[in-house]
Amino acid sequence: MTKFKNIDGGITAPKGFKAAGVNAGIKSSRLDMALIVSDVPAAVAGVFTLNKIQGAPVKVCKKRLKRKTARAVIVNSGKANACVGARGVTDAERMCVLTAELLGVDDQTVFVSSTGTIGLPLPMDKIEHGIRMAVKALSVDGGNNAARAIMTTDTVDKQTAVKLKAGGADVTIGAMCKGAGMIAPNMATMLAYITTDADVDADSLQVCLKAAVDQSFNKISVDGDQSCNDTVLILANGKAGNRKLSVKHPDWKIFCEAVNEVTRSLALRMVEDGEGVTKVVTVIVTGAKSKEDARKAVRAIGNSLLVKTSWNGGDPNWGRVIDAVGYSGAQVKEELVDISYDNMAAVKQGKLASNSKLEDLEKVLKQKCFSVNVNLNLGKAEDVLYTCDCSEEYVKINAEYMT
Amino acid sequence: MTKFKNIDGGITAPKGFKAAGVNAGIKSSRLDMALIVSDVPAAVAGVFTLNKIQGAPVKVCKKRLKRKTARAVIVNSGKANACVGARGVTDAERMCVLTAELLGVDDQTVFVSSTGTIGLPLPMDKIEHGIRMAVKALSVDGGNNAARAIMTTDTVDKQTAVKLKAGGADVTIGAMCKGAGMIAPNMATMLAYITTDADVDADSLQVCLKAAVDQSFNKISVDGDQSCNDTVLILANGKAGNRKLSVKHPDWKIFCEAVNEVTRSLALRMVEDGEGVTKVVTVIVTGAKSKEDARKAVRAIGNSLLVKTSWNGGDPNWGRVIDAVGYSGAQVKEELVDISYDNMAAVKQGKLASNSKLEDLEKVLKQKCFSVNVNLNLGKAEDVLYTCDCSEEYVKINAEYMT
Repeated sequence: MTKFKNIDGGITAPKGFKAAGVNAGIKSSRLDMALIVSDVPAAVAGVFTLNKIQGAPVKVCKKRLKRKTARAVIVNSGKANACVGARGVTDAERMCVLTAELLGVDDQTVFVSSTGTIGLPLPMDKIEHGIRMAVKALSVDGGNNAARAIMTTDTVDKQTAVKLKAGGADVTIGAMCKGAGMIAPNMATMLAYITTDADVDADSLQVCLKAAVDQSFNKISVDGDQSCNDTVLILANGKAGNRKLSVKHPDWKIFCEAVNEVTRSLALRMVEDGEGVTKVVTVIVTGAKSKEDARKAVRAIGNSLLVKTSWNGGDPNWGRVIDAVGYSGAQVKEELVDISYDNMAAVKQGKLASNSKLEDLEKVLKQKCFSVNVNLNLGKAEDVLYTCDCSEEYVKINAEYMT
Repeated sequence: MTKFKNIDGGITAPKGFKAAGVNAGIKSSRLDMALIVSDVPAAVAGVFTLNKIQGAPVKVCKKRLKRKTARAVIVNSGKANACVGARGVTDAERMCVLTAELLGVDDQTVFVSSTGTIGLPLPMDKIEHGIRMAVKALSVDGGNNAARAIMTTDTVDKQTAVKLKAGGADVTIGAMCKGAGMIAPNMATMLAYITTDADVDADSLQVCLKAAVDQSFNKISVDGDQSCNDTVLILANGKAGNRKLSVKHPDWKIFCEAVNEVTRSLALRMVEDGEGVTKVVTVIVTGAKSKEDARKAVRAIGNSLLVKTSWNGGDPNWGRVIDAVGYSGAQVKEELVDISYDNMAAVKQGKLASNSKLEDLEKVLKQKCFSVNVNLNLGKAEDVLYTCDCSEEYVKINAEYMT
């Protein structure tokens, strides 16, 4: 259920944004470069991976973010431009400079992302060719192609757009993202781009984005691996003609809620489209002694290979769930732990619930989506993780990705 | 290469030990209960899981260990006797008491282990029947059956025995273990039992065992999941007639080395027989700023699903290795990192080594065993982890384990 009006389209749904997706030949026959352009300079905010190994585009974006203004974002898939030595930053900057030249804008306002295999340098001749094609292909209808061009192992493109009233005007927020593997929380997982025609103060926009990412992309996990290229950018170009939004504006809350909804919707789609995923599982830990304990417990459960494979088999193996809580580092007293699947009790006070029936639990686990609820009964802190099973297909995809 | 004389047999190779393995009907047609008995009271030491959720047998063993004397160990596979409420400890104690009665020994000298599905109570009628059968079946040739009776998803039994001179006598150390899934370091991973006819001071024995476990079972990982029932016990019954060994004895070092060799040999066999394992990989991190950093880095690499699946595919995807180091929490400078597979350089100073050839690296990765060496070039600390790939077969086994 959504509070906001969902509309068709993605990043080009808001006024004053154009986009393109082209095949530059980095991949043989799929779209592999995307370009997003705002007609006018936009306020920009960004959140990036916390991995200590960071892709060159992340380094370049972080520097440019200090000026808080963006005109364009150029993205390639296929190669991550990470761990390629000093040429990584040179290549990423070259992508910005060439894009800026062709658009006739300041190169410091062009942002850049790359996603794909780590460690192999970008084929710059193809990239430059792709940038030229992308600039030519720019269109207000280009959002679809852009969303497809950033995909790697994703099986579907992920876009969303909502409309709301804010600052006395109709405001639109559009977004797209990619991500299906190397997905884990505690970071701006994967690539996501949000555009809005709202006029928003840049510092406020950063606060809004950080909070939205914490409640969405940082709450999902596919495989527990944190990527080194993850980037979330939001561009606000003011084309809606609203009174400028900022943290003090009465409509600030509603605007942030809309951004939250957009990021949350994309995050869930990312889990659904996770590599080899057959089940989407919401892990909820309540009654933890501290916020950090709740966080540790949801992650240990959601990232446990044994728990994830048991979900894959539709097996209500709560023993693996409580085992994961036990090694998570969170405070836990076995005799206080309750576990349920959806609303069906499996464990009460650390042992099989008296009314628990294996065949009923199996019915819950057979669903495409279900929740695992663990109450530690030690305090009031809670956390949630949106995650998925681990299938033979996941292994297959990742055994064959590079070579 | 081994320093000690390997001999046939396992836990009944040392003098004065008998064992049995029987089918109590917990599993339909496989051996599922094991008994080890020393002819005389033996000094005993033990190391147990660090999981905060602990199986009932672990609780019972820890209490009995305070008296430092053991006559017998009774073990069942099939059910873990963990997370079953208060009856868990009652059942585990009952196993000790019945075994003691039938053997005519003090029940406080009987130790107990269980392995299998968590959360389901032990079928005590079958267990009691099994104990009676096991006592009757005790024999100096019973080591093989005992080793088979403790297996769960293991495909082979794991036994070893060595001979050495210590304290003026011929001393034998025998051992058996089980473990193929829910295997991760930082604990006394899985079940392992070591017997020796050496006369050893119990406090010294504990020091020896702890050190041996740290260098063996705590250095392996199959899936990163730490079990709640893991137990390593060593019994020393003095039947060899040696002068009593203790930390101050001139032969102490050689005795500890032999115990180390036994535990290390078992630990490696556990990885080799890990669920669905097709490749055994030694991950070595050197040049870390601190011991803890080295530990974090080897574990992040060895437990990364993306790294493990790439090994499965024979894919020298070092990008996933450096990515895992990046999120491990260890200090890392991208431009200093070197990575090699066996002795073949893949990464120099954070980027593809100039002499690195993909086809040569692929040859290394095609082997059944290889090492991944990561030099952080930041300090002098190092650590090692013996681990394995993650295969579609692993997922299959664990999707179907409980139901």
